[in-house]
Amino acid sequence: VHIGILGGTGMEARGLALRFAAAGASVFLGSRQSERASRAADACNKALGGPLVRAGSNREMLASSGIVFITVPYPQAAAAVDACRWLFRPHHILVDVTVPVIFREGHAELAAAEDGTSNAEIVARCLPDGVPLVAAFKTIPAAILADLELPLNCDVIVSGDVAAARQKVIETAGLISSLRALDGGPLRTARTLERMAVLAIELNLRYKKKGARYRIEGL
Amino acid sequence: VHIGILGGTGMEARGLALRFAAAGASVFLGSRQSERASRAADACNKALGGPLVRAGSNREMLASSGIVFITVPYPQAAAAVDACRWLFRPHHILVDVTVPVIFREGHAELAAAEDGTSNAEIVARCLPDGVPLVAAFKTIPAAILADLELPLNCDVIVSGDVAAARQKVIETAGLISSLRALDGGPLRTARTLERMAVLAIELNLRYKKKGARYRIEGL
Repeated sequence: VHIGILGGTGMEARGLALRFAAAGASVFLGSRQSERASRAADACNKALGGPLVRAGSNREMLASSGIVFITVPYPQAAAAVDACRWLFRPHHILVDVTVPVIFREGHAELAAAEDGTSNAEIVARCLPDGVPLVAAFKTIPAAILADLELPLNCDVIVSGDVAAARQKVIETAGLISSLRALDGGPLRTARTLERMAVLAIELNLRYKKKGARYRIEGL
Repeated sequence: VHIGILGGTGMEARGLALRFAAAGASVFLGSRQSERASRAADACNKALGGPLVRAGSNREMLASSGIVFITVPYPQAAAAVDACRWLFRPHHILVDVTVPVIFREGHAELAAAEDGTSNAEIVARCLPDGVPLVAAFKTIPAAILADLELPLNCDVIVSGDVAAARQKVIETAGLISSLRALDGGPLRTARTLERMAVLAIELNLRYKKKGARYRIEGL
């Protein structure tokens, strides 16, 4: 599996890179500034103990990746995809992991569109026809992903309107040990996943923890 | 703890009555037709092995209960509360467990208000001033609650705008073994809980199971 990360220099990018590289996948960090991606990859490789993660521009990343995770902060996601729009090809699957959250007076709040549309649905509209978007990993805290010593012990719910793309992401997520991937159905489910992510952040704030994440019992 | 159940003749009512009575709480099933409540209570008491659950009209139930669960189907919840409005007193806490779900072509869909308001918020508006509403138990399948042999092994997230009422419901839910109650903050969180409930139903349909429910890892 060739995994690319668009905007690959933050904590979420680091977490995905570490987990997928440790699981044996090829990982390529992309950034508008190749330098920044290189520094992030170096830090990952240090943690991994070998040169497993490559880096370059977003253009280079898209040229050598199949499944591309977008990990920029949520307000920049649509513009970041738009800027690379001409580089997407039908073999790509874009995985949106962004969480539309704002912090106000010490509380986490959903920053959803007026009409309730999820950020995933908004980002999907920026892709060329024929390139599917899948929402996943929204409910798993970045800091937990990035701590390789910690078993995830949670589920990732995967949603998207193209069943084959969804299935591919489910299989890819399943490479990560201690993580179970579940089929969440159509992209509209992202409205639920984004709210769940905000609730987990709010529970972390209330209980002074950092790792609240979901397991589905009974499946 | 004196627990009442408004509309206490369905599976959700049975589940709550069995779990709370088994935990040592006093439980009173209310119905518009006392006869139906009595039959439901008889069935509970048979399962419990003793006369632990009482029954009567909704009026009798409200007169002898502090924490009142409303367990009618979601489209009838607001009218059911409205019909009993004059019987609510400031010591009451109404707990809304309803899930606004519709089934279409084999799929579960959220039946939310146009503007995204939760059913819990709509029901809350039917109560007299000073009677708090708390949303809880929405994400736990009724069939799982009603199977006393089965450990719940899940969390219940409790939300409501009156902190003292929320705390009281958290304590009460904590009486049930194998269930952890978490503080979900303001009533607005019910928008997330209702979506989570629909997602759990959808996962049950997709994976041909009946007991999908949530545990929060890392808290």
